[in-house]
Amino acid sequence: MSDVLTISQVNELNYEDFIGRFGNVIEHCSICAAVVWRFRPFHDVHHLHQEICSFVDLLPDTGKEGVLRLLPDLTGRLAELDRLTQESAAEQKAAGLDTMTPEEKQLLKDTNAKYRDKFGFPFVICARQNKKEAILKGIVERLEHSATEELNIGIEEVKKICMLRLLSIVPDDK
Amino acid sequence: MSDVLTISQVNELNYEDFIGRFGNVIEHCSICAAVVWRFRPFHDVHHLHQEICSFVDLLPDTGKEGVLRLLPDLTGRLAELDRLTQESAAEQKAAGLDTMTPEEKQLLKDTNAKYRDKFGFPFVICARQNKKEAILKGIVERLEHSATEELNIGIEEVKKICMLRLLSIVPDDK
Repeated sequence: MSDVLTISQVNELNYEDFIGRFGNVIEHCSICAAVVWRFRPFHDVHHLHQEICSFVDLLPDTGKEGVLRLLPDLTGRLAELDRLTQESAAEQKAAGLDTMTPEEKQLLKDTNAKYRDKFGFPFVICARQNKKEAILKGIVERLEHSATEELNIGIEEVKKICMLRLLSIVPDDK
Repeated sequence: MSDVLTISQVNELNYEDFIGRFGNVIEHCSICAAVVWRFRPFHDVHHLHQEICSFVDLLPDTGKEGVLRLLPDLTGRLAELDRLTQESAAEQKAAGLDTMTPEEKQLLKDTNAKYRDKFGFPFVICARQNKKEAILKGIVERLEHSATEELNIGIEEVKKICMLRLLSIVPDDK
């Protein structure tokens, strides 16, 4: 199977291959791919994305929190242990998180811990669309938000991450 | 870490270890464990089970279908490929599915295929609480049901499977 797929090829996948390709477009949350299987055929990658987002939007708030909790802390313990999923590792690298100074790392780590303590879920940002400076600024600002605001912002970031992961499998011009 | 845990030990787990232990009590659906993390401390294993079931009940029907789709076909392709999760393999063995005659296997395979074609999700039954004869009888009977009935029955079976998986980690007398 080639690395990228056209939407016609997506629509022809059997269920197991579909889950194999799309099971992690929302991190560790293959139920999203399992849910949207019923909405084939997809017109294009945006249609696929939209069905995933609709399901996420239908989750109760506890479920949305769960979605956020399945994402890794940026530069957190999993990254240190080199146990990130392939997708997350590439995204964090694209944001330049692997080039942070020790001081920047410590600041992100401390603020992350405060964020998780306050909200009960990790700080989520679409790393590919932000550079490390924006991420460091963002987390400090978002720490001041309410839990409801952060739940909504976090989920919108998850959807952006999902779109970029989808596009890496089904490029838009295909 | 010991193989089994007391509920106090469960309540002391950090998030990563919690997901590591409970991430597959609903097959391939670690969001359930991620969701109930917020309801600690748990009084006992039944409390943990109840919170997982409450979340599953809150899913829209498309989500419940997704939960069912994440379970393997009984003796289906994944089993043949020896790619079942450890939990599913043990459950199917406990039901005696590994001792089926070629004729029984073919019957189950054919009926499974009809079931999946009709409902769009696999036949789900708590294998540990049924022997192969009951499973073969069950699938033929359940094939006559409506999709709504089968969605509900399947989800109740998932909850039973979940309870037995939980009890294998947190025995009730602990």
